[in-house]
Amino acid sequence: MNQVIETILNHRSIRSFEDKLLSKEQIETIVKSAQAASTSSYIQAYSIIGITDQEMKKKLAEVVGNQPYVEKNGHFFVFCADLYRHAVIGKMEEKDVEPSIESTEKFMVALIDAALAAQNAALAAESMGLGICYIGGIRNNLEEVVKLLKTPDRVIPLFGLAVGYPAKITGQKPRLPLEHIYHENTYEANEEKYTKELEEYNEVIKKYYLERTAGKRSETWTEQMGKMLERKSRMYMKEFVADKKLNLR
Amino acid sequence: MNQVIETILNHRSIRSFEDKLLSKEQIETIVKSAQAASTSSYIQAYSIIGITDQEMKKKLAEVVGNQPYVEKNGHFFVFCADLYRHAVIGKMEEKDVEPSIESTEKFMVALIDAALAAQNAALAAESMGLGICYIGGIRNNLEEVVKLLKTPDRVIPLFGLAVGYPAKITGQKPRLPLEHIYHENTYEANEEKYTKELEEYNEVIKKYYLERTAGKRSETWTEQMGKMLERKSRMYMKEFVADKKLNLR
Repeated sequence: MNQVIETILNHRSIRSFEDKLLSKEQIETIVKSAQAASTSSYIQAYSIIGITDQEMKKKLAEVVGNQPYVEKNGHFFVFCADLYRHAVIGKMEEKDVEPSIESTEKFMVALIDAALAAQNAALAAESMGLGICYIGGIRNNLEEVVKLLKTPDRVIPLFGLAVGYPAKITGQKPRLPLEHIYHENTYEANEEKYTKELEEYNEVIKKYYLERTAGKRSETWTEQMGKMLERKSRMYMKEFVADKKLNLR
Repeated sequence: MNQVIETILNHRSIRSFEDKLLSKEQIETIVKSAQAASTSSYIQAYSIIGITDQEMKKKLAEVVGNQPYVEKNGHFFVFCADLYRHAVIGKMEEKDVEPSIESTEKFMVALIDAALAAQNAALAAESMGLGICYIGGIRNNLEEVVKLLKTPDRVIPLFGLAVGYPAKITGQKPRLPLEHIYHENTYEANEEKYTKELEEYNEVIKKYYLERTAGKRSETWTEQMGKMLERKSRMYMKEFVADKKLNLR
């Protein structure tokens, strides 16, 4: 196994960091790594905002809903889907790019571009011995996040990436069985088979939580997902994204 | 520089592969690497379809629009946003998960999850000396792709990933200047500054194409983007995604 695969398979989210900031060089290496990712038709439809202002990190942590690692980390990145610069390009080149920019297709492109870049950033950081945690919680209140970060129309902050020197290493959560995620040639949408596979996976997860919490928690994966998905969370998103003139047509 | 960052920074899309299939072990390592990526609240909202049937690869290549590397490669993966299993979970757990699953928020989650997994897969492959190319072209005709792959509602094939032994190594395309992609604390949406930066970048790209094509091509980045975005491509996407009962509310 090479160092890349080792780093990938060794991933776990780190939620407690030492009080030590990343160096300028580390940040640059991480951003350059992000930029090296594939990008759909060379469109480069994302931006990264690095938060260095401690007061701002504190505010972001509040907005996200009291995740201390949003405030206390070595560096905090926010990855954004970004078609603002492409709107500027429309003016520069005198082309009507609006229908494209406002399409669901290009919204998807921007999301995928940003996520590919982010995963490169995450792995680059982890390869340097740093820990990372994605913060989807910034989508709890994007109205506030957008105000804080001053992002314009055509830009959606998607998630944060907290990076830093790990203070506490956690365990790895077992993933779905490979056979359940990976299909050959065609997707086998067999409800009965799915249910059976998920029940088997549930046993793995139950055992994992029991061991990890010394018998205090015994939730299955489908229980956890059922509860989470029953909650109608972030239902403002469709309107919010449309208000920023994306995913419109 | 460690091997991870080296692999990341050395990325280039490979579009010509040797006639040699990946081994079962290589495929498994790539899929396991994909699964090791972070996933929003443990939701694991993606699936991967590996195409081994040569006839099917050929059909896919036709659907995509004659990209020979979709047919000729060491292995072809299709990454899908997938909330089908979560619909099954709703039934298993007797919870009303529909509003969640049909939300723009969860559509975004599934896209991001799939892309994070894909980038791990891409890097794992590259670390083994294989080349990769993302194939957004499968979105040219998702109706046909869905028929071929038999994906159910709540599943959207997002992109392909062609992997194989490189037959021809290409150059790397220069990315936007770091300062243009990376903001500190707040996003500076200054149209004038953006235009100036893009003009500078244009000179880099023009020079790159001139050198690469021995003077035959001298396109700038904004010209290329302007032309691309002027075309109304894949405008069926919003309706298609809605038809699959995603991104609805």
